[in-house]
Amino acid sequence: MIKNVVIIGAGNLATQLALALFEKGIQVKQVYSRKIESASELAGKVNASFTNNLAQLLPEADLYVIAVKDSAIQEVLENLKIDETQLIVHTSGSVPMSILDGFSNNYGVFYPLQTFSKTRRVDFSAIPICIETNHPSNMMKLEKLGEMLSSSVNQINSEERKTLHLAAVFVNNFVNHLYSIGANILHDKKLDFNLLKPLIRETAEKIEVLQPIDAQTGPAKRNDQNTINAQLKMLQDKPDFQKIYSFATESIFQLQQKHNHDLL
Amino acid sequence: MIKNVVIIGAGNLATQLALALFEKGIQVKQVYSRKIESASELAGKVNASFTNNLAQLLPEADLYVIAVKDSAIQEVLENLKIDETQLIVHTSGSVPMSILDGFSNNYGVFYPLQTFSKTRRVDFSAIPICIETNHPSNMMKLEKLGEMLSSSVNQINSEERKTLHLAAVFVNNFVNHLYSIGANILHDKKLDFNLLKPLIRETAEKIEVLQPIDAQTGPAKRNDQNTINAQLKMLQDKPDFQKIYSFATESIFQLQQKHNHDLL
Repeated sequence: MIKNVVIIGAGNLATQLALALFEKGIQVKQVYSRKIESASELAGKVNASFTNNLAQLLPEADLYVIAVKDSAIQEVLENLKIDETQLIVHTSGSVPMSILDGFSNNYGVFYPLQTFSKTRRVDFSAIPICIETNHPSNMMKLEKLGEMLSSSVNQINSEERKTLHLAAVFVNNFVNHLYSIGANILHDKKLDFNLLKPLIRETAEKIEVLQPIDAQTGPAKRNDQNTINAQLKMLQDKPDFQKIYSFATESIFQLQQKHNHDLL
Repeated sequence: MIKNVVIIGAGNLATQLALALFEKGIQVKQVYSRKIESASELAGKVNASFTNNLAQLLPEADLYVIAVKDSAIQEVLENLKIDETQLIVHTSGSVPMSILDGFSNNYGVFYPLQTFSKTRRVDFSAIPICIETNHPSNMMKLEKLGEMLSSSVNQINSEERKTLHLAAVFVNNFVNHLYSIGANILHDKKLDFNLLKPLIRETAEKIEVLQPIDAQTGPAKRNDQNTINAQLKMLQDKPDFQKIYSFATESIFQLQQKHNHDLL
């Protein structure tokens, strides 16, 4: 059973995961970050020691969690000096588990499918945790750890995780960007973004009960060319937004047509 | 004071508005719809009479609410046979108030900024109601009515309402389409859309406390070309989604650059 961890990274995910583990009584032995201030800051919150030197990681922890940005994982691995029997996981949606092969005999992935900020606490209990391991005995360990945090622990392989991450980019990154565009459009006309918040909430809540394809409304779905053209014209000073408007409108129409056809 | 209304329309918005008014003790005298079954169905829910003939609208109601799709408003107006002192409003985000000019001396707009479905009840108390009238005395009447339904009643002119509606298309229609794309991507790989729901909820909730531009995360913001290229490749069989991915990614990057520049 995993009773203590070393957290490698001190970014958004590392921070929220360390806090959640700490609160569940898992000991965070050490926090590593390239920046000593970041390591120190997070370590302070979870009662851990800290370092900015990968050669100085504590040698015996039940689990080493690599929670750095994707492009830094390889470098972390190459500088890691831990015994090859130690259990290591990374937490990335898009990096295959196989990147860990050769660095330890016991490895896996522990991917919480959520968006994290450093300062905003999230409720881990509803976060799907996607787990993959190189060996069933490691699977049991990670499952137990996952179940301490969340009621949704899922065995997901690297291919599936890549697909989930791609879908997550659409429903989180791109959705948030649409919120930014909405805010930007209102800001230019001195209108209050708060006016959109109930709509944003309802849009997200609606799909708890309706399939998104059935929840679709608006000019694109109705193929209401008058409104579409008028709105494209309103965006003439914002070619970026105009392009997104065009392609989203076209794509909504296509997907609805396909959906109606599939229902026949 | 408005004590009773005639509802012209029986679609999503007409249905939810009629139900909300009925529950607050406003009498719904009559429901009109082109389709008699739709008129009858809604009328049954709010204890109203119904008709599919605009010439047979009851002659004396405190308010006539046109809640039909934008493209049908003109036709409704031309066939309306009511006294020109009667108060008429439409409920559209993108149609200017001036469309009502000439059909009555007392007119306005009563636009609830929300997405409606026929079957899903919404909580009106948080919905921003955007009001415009041709005369202050009508403004007072509509404000009172709005305040019976919601704590957010706002004087918004036709230009502003058009801007709000445009922004609403981004944060509702396009956002929902991104949910559909997410669902579609998972469906193809037999993955459960429920895995994305906590992320979707958190994405919407995060902007209650953060500006969307500050809540942005992901490969586009980090300009992580490896992930971006890998994900574009995963979408090679879905050129529509691929286009949206490209433009959204480019647009996120641009907006972040601009934002960082503005902060300097």
